[in-house]
Formats: sequence, C-alpha cells, structure tokens
Amino acid sequence: MFKINENYLKLPGSYLFATIGKKVNEFTQKNPDKTIIRLGIGDVTQPLAPAIINSLHNAVDEMGTQEGFHGYAPDLGYEFLRSAIAKNDYESRGANITKDEIFVSDGAKCDCANIQEIFSLDNKIAVCDPVYPVYVDSNVMAGRTGTYDALTERWSDVIYMPCTKENNFTPELPKETPDLIYLCFPNNPTGAMITKDELQVWVDYANKVGAVILYDAAYEAYISDENVPHTIYECEGARTCAIEFRSFSKNAGFTGVRLGFTVIPKDLMCGDVSLHSLWARRHGTKYNGAPYMIQRAGEAVYSPEGKEQLKAQVAYYMNNARTIKEGLQSAGYTVSGGVNAPYVWLQTPDGMTSWEFFDYLLNNANVVGTPGSGFGPSGEGYFRLTGFGTYENTLEAIKRIKKM
Amino acid sequence: MFKINENYLKLPGSYLFATIGKKVNEFTQKNPDKTIIRLGIGDVTQPLAPAIINSLHNAVDEMGTQEGFHGYAPDLGYEFLRSAIAKNDYESRGANITKDEIFVSDGAKCDCANIQEIFSLDNKIAVCDPVYPVYVDSNVMAGRTGTYDALTERWSDVIYMPCTKENNFTPELPKETPDLIYLCFPNNPTGAMITKDELQVWVDYANKVGAVILYDAAYEAYISDENVPHTIYECEGARTCAIEFRSFSKNAGFTGVRLGFTVIPKDLMCGDVSLHSLWARRHGTKYNGAPYMIQRAGEAVYSPEGKEQLKAQVAYYMNNARTIKEGLQSAGYTVSGGVNAPYVWLQTPDGMTSWEFFDYLLNNANVVGTPGSGFGPSGEGYFRLTGFGTYENTLEAIKRIKKM
Repeated sequence: MFKINENYLKLPGSYLFATIGKKVNEFTQKNPDKTIIRLGIGDVTQPLAPAIINSLHNAVDEMGTQEGFHGYAPDLGYEFLRSAIAKNDYESRGANITKDEIFVSDGAKCDCANIQEIFSLDNKIAVCDPVYPVYVDSNVMAGRTGTYDALTERWSDVIYMPCTKENNFTPELPKETPDLIYLCFPNNPTGAMITKDELQVWVDYANKVGAVILYDAAYEAYISDENVPHTIYECEGARTCAIEFRSFSKNAGFTGVRLGFTVIPKDLMCGDVSLHSLWARRHGTKYNGAPYMIQRAGEAVYSPEGKEQLKAQVAYYMNNARTIKEGLQSAGYTVSGGVNAPYVWLQTPDGMTSWEFFDYLLNNANVVGTPGSGFGPSGEGYFRLTGFGTYENTLEAIKRIKKM
Repeated sequence: MFKINENYLKLPGSYLFATIGKKVNEFTQKNPDKTIIRLGIGDVTQPLAPAIINSLHNAVDEMGTQEGFHGYAPDLGYEFLRSAIAKNDYESRGANITKDEIFVSDGAKCDCANIQEIFSLDNKIAVCDPVYPVYVDSNVMAGRTGTYDALTERWSDVIYMPCTKENNFTPELPKETPDLIYLCFPNNPTGAMITKDELQVWVDYANKVGAVILYDAAYEAYISDENVPHTIYECEGARTCAIEFRSFSKNAGFTGVRLGFTVIPKDLMCGDVSLHSLWARRHGTKYNGAPYMIQRAGEAVYSPEGKEQLKAQVAYYMNNARTIKEGLQSAGYTVSGGVNAPYVWLQTPDGMTSWEFFDYLLNNANVVGTPGSGFGPSGEGYFRLTGFGTYENTLEAIKRIKKM
C-alpha cells in the first residue's frame, strides 16, 4: 500500500493567503453590498506597460510563423534575456555576475520553494521572524524542520531570527550556526531595508561559518536610499556564499505573467561540487523553461521605453505606500516600512491580535490586509498593508480606516 | 558547514537530451557546412494555430488595460480553462472528472517530476523500461531509488517492467508489488499503445494492491484506434487509484508556450488523507500559476476553430511519422510505433548499440535521433525518431537514411 509524505500533515492550517481568501469570500457572500478594498496579498493592479505589451504582441506574431516559432527554450533561459539581466542588474551595479550564472524561471516563489531540494535534509535553516511563509513551508514539506510547537508557533529545528521594533526589523546574527540563511531585503512583510554595510556583515559571517545565504531581492526596484544594496553581489565575498532570487512581479507587474530568475555564482562550492551544477541539473530535469513570449516581455523591461514606463509604475505604487504610511501616522498608528519597500507594517491598536485586527478592518472598513502573525510569531500584534492597490482605492481605504 | 543533497551525485551522466545537445553542437562546429535534421528531442516545429494566436493577442490587449489586467491566477487555474478541459477531455469520453479535480500548470514534465513529493520516501516505484527519464531521475533526486549499478544500468530499489519486442512494448504486471506505477500511453519513447481492456487490468491491479498509477497521457491527441483509451478515467475504478498528467505541448504545439494539467480525483485517498488536498497544498505553496494569457490560449484549443486547426496539425505530424515508418521499412529496418503515437521505434541494424547508431546517423545522414538506451537498458539496440519535424525535413531525412 502506498504511503504519503507525512511531512505535509505537519503543516499547521492552510497557506496564509488561501485562508485570507476564504475569509474574504465568506464576508462578501454575507455582505454583497459592501465594496472590499484589497491591500492584503502583494498582487499588483496596474496594467502592463506599453513597451511590454508591444513586445508580447510581436512575440505572439512570431509564434504564428514558421520562421519565428519557438519550441522548448534553452535550459537556462534565452541568451537575450540573460544578457540584459547581467548587464542591467549586475554589471551596472559593479556586481560581477555573468549571464551563465543566471537561471530564468517562472517566478521567485517557485525558485525560493525549490532551492532547498539541492541541499541535504540535515541542513539547518535560519529565517527571519516574521517571514514570507514559503521559505519555512517548503522546508517543512521536505522534512527539514523537526516538530511544530503550536504554543510558540515554532519548529524545533528552525533557527528564528526575530525582527522587532527593538532591532528596527533587521535581524541579528543567530547564536546557533545555521547552514542555510533566508534573507529578504527590501523585506516582505515588514518593509524594512538593510544597508550595504549591514549586509556585508552577513556575507562575512556566512563565509566564515560555511553557510549559504538565500537572498530574496524581489523588491529591489523599490529601493530609493543610496546606501541600500540592490543585489547581494554588491558585497565582497558574496560569490562564494550567496544565491539570489529575483522577480519581475513587482518591478514590472508580472504577477499574472510569471517570470523570475535565480543567480548562482560558479564560485559557490561544497567541496568540489558547484551548487550551479546541481541547480542546472534540477532545472533540466524538473522544469521546462519560461515561455518564449514572456522571456521577450522580460527583455522589454530593460529597453529604454520599458525602463521609463516602469519607473513611473514603481513611483505610482510607492506614492500609495507613502499615502498609507502618512495616513496611518496621522490617525495615530505606529508604522514602519513604506520607504524602500511597497509594504507598510503597522502595530495593531488597543492590544488587538493580528487576526482580530484583520476582522476588525474587514468588518468596519471593508479593507483586506495581512495579519502579521501569519508571517511568524514575532509578527503578532502587527499588520501588513501594501501599496499595490490603485491610488483611488488606497485613498478610499485610508479614509475609511481614519473613520473607524 | 552546509551540505548538499547527495542523491544528486548518484545520477549517472547528464540529462539525456542535454548530452544529445552537446554532441550535436560539437558536430556542427566541426562541420559547419552540413545541414542537420533534428528528429530527436520531441519538440514541435509547426507555428501556433491561428485560433491560438488570436486568443493570445486578445489576452495581451486585456493585460494592457486597467479593467482587463490579471494578476496572480487562482491556485487551481482559471475556471474557464478547467471547465473546457472537464467538458472536452473527460465528459465527452464518459469519464467522470469535475473541473475541481483539475490542476492547471506550466507543463506535464514539471508535474510528472514533482508529483513524487507528496508520497513517502519509502514508496517503491515501478517504471517501464525503456522510459521517459524524468520519472526515474526525479525519484533519484528525492532518494527513493537505492544504489545504481552501472553494469546493469539499474537502480536497486526500482521495479523495472521491460517493454520489448516479445511483449509488443507493453509491460506485464510486475512480480514485486510497487507503490507507485508510472505508465505512459501512447508511449514515449516506443510509440506503443495500450487498449482499454489492457489498461483496465492495470487499474484493477492498482486498486487490489493499493498502488497509485501515475498516468502520463501527453500524447493522447495522436490516438487513432477506437479501442485505445484517451484517458485512464475511461476505466472503471480509476478514480481511486490514478493520477493523470496532460500536456498542451504535443496536441497544440505549446512546447515553448508551457501549459499542462494534472487530474487528481477526490476519491483517491490514503486513509483519510486525499491526495487532492496534498497536491493542492503543494500547488499553493510552491507554484504560482500559469500565465493568464496562456490559460486563454489553452481555452482556444477547445474552441471550434481551434479544434479544427489542431486536428490538421496532428494529422501533419502523423503523416511525418508514417513517412518515417514506411521509409525505414522499405529500407529494411524493423520498426514499430508511429500509428497512435508520433514516435517511431526502430531496431538498430548490424548489432550496433544505440549510441553507435546515433553517431552513425549523425555522421552519415546528419540526422539527429534519440538513442533507445538513453531511456533504459531495454532500450539498448533501439532508436527513436519523431514525427515532429517539418514534412520537407522528414522526407529529406528518410532520403538520406536510405542512401546510407
């Protein structure tokens, strides 16, 4: 008789955003007259930029002709896209990453979830608390996290690095030595950032203890401060200790288009085995490439028109984030984030739990946000709102929240 | 110090099609004047059908407008696509599968490779020999296959079901009881088919011994015989023992578009845990949906125009397969497949090994095929050619082979 992977049964509850979706559906069915404003899940709302639309139409036309048709994509992704990435995202920032170290994929979520596969089940992970749930859940499914304590909401074999008001939502080096360290900056969910000097400390630490940093830079387009690194490879020594995940979802609105990439420098070794070769093997065996049309759309992100249009789109969302932050502050809330990141992180008022505030906000303002506790125990008492709505909805949401 | 997943190091050599790619590149560099004809990897060559191109353009236009923009797709896929699949691929064949049992994805290869994750590492797999390499390799990476014996080219913990001339390339029930049984019909690589009565025997067996059949039906569009099932759910009892993988790559030319789906009936249980719920959890946590535009393209596959145009496309490739089969037969080769499948399976002449014939064909006819031994030890002495080339190239390839 076949058996299932019992690790799946250890996962407490359902995926955070699925739970939110269910709650919102229930509310909508009971209150069909209310207009819900969603500032919860990090989904974007602005249409694709004209440069991207043009590129997609051209690629679709190609696919309809004998000469222009493209079948299976090359394993690492098309050279035209990897070149554009290497030039614009790395070379331009003085980061020494070549196009052959870039693996194009259908998004950072999948890559973040799958990367743990190339590591031993014995490896111990360290995560920020609060944290994007995918890092932990994918390790739970693999059986790397030990047992779950419902009281503390923690796994026995995970090293938690609390990100709190006290440390400005930036983690300190862990006391216990981890093998794999998940970091995400600009941070989801807190909107916190890290300076280049602070990140250098992590790179030096990882090289010293023999750990790998799994660096999620999905929100790098939202950085405005000079001293905040856009890629971990701006730090010296990162090529021997860091893997970087990047997304087109937030800088170009590709949440429904699906494109991302992972960088694994060829210097990142475990003895005489390169992690690059392991990931290449996984990519070749278990994945079949991002669509040609969508890789062309990714190329357009780096065109002069694309850059111009997307700069305006990012500014639009950041204006929303500022609107939320300033609106909440003027209403007396304690707020952080929203400067180098599209996420605003607020302290729930009157000692409410995160889920109590979720219900309170849904019922009284018909606004959907994300409970901080859904991201980890240190998120309890916090709440995430995003700048990814429309400006009109964002204004309306703040108006309603102020009225509560 | 971090450690890698040592199972990856057990994989012998590189992924089959990567090896072929390297050999062809080397030949091309040494012989820049030769025109290579590729009938190796199962990649299609015909442009996307007009109904699909139209649908893609419309969806791209939508994505450029505020009202038509689509962000993250629903976890299971868009309802419009799942409905079309349920109606056309299942209801129409008397198979009782509902739209909520369908998980839309970016292709059957990924799903076939990832499905093993929801099962225990203790489960024993059974595979046909020869077989599509992804089934075995994904289990090797997970650590489910024991040790590799280079002499027999077999894994100690895998049950092999030889498919040979003697059994008409259709496996017999294994002597040892497996937990997971991979079956693929119409078969890749042999082009063999299975009748409904024969498949019913497997379904009854799986229900009796408590095994799950992982049924890869990526080539169902190529079926012409009446008694060959298009889906395993045409068999009675399949809802309690079978998972089915389907692809748009070969019926609609989506190898570079990326779309597929997996069916997990809600009756498929392990005790009180449904495999549907486990896969839903995996899908939600480690995947982020197929692009909206591409799900619309999938919908167009089921439109009246789409069906008409794709019927012609399938006929085009099957005409190629027939051309190969008849050409080889008239040249004295022993050949099977090519009737309900786009693959032609030939016995190598003069006692050559599969790789010897690969080199012989490449050097003397400049034609690329796939060595049968790359699919498993029982494939030794065989060779796969595909009908997925252009008609002109297929004719030319046969002309060159006849001249050898």
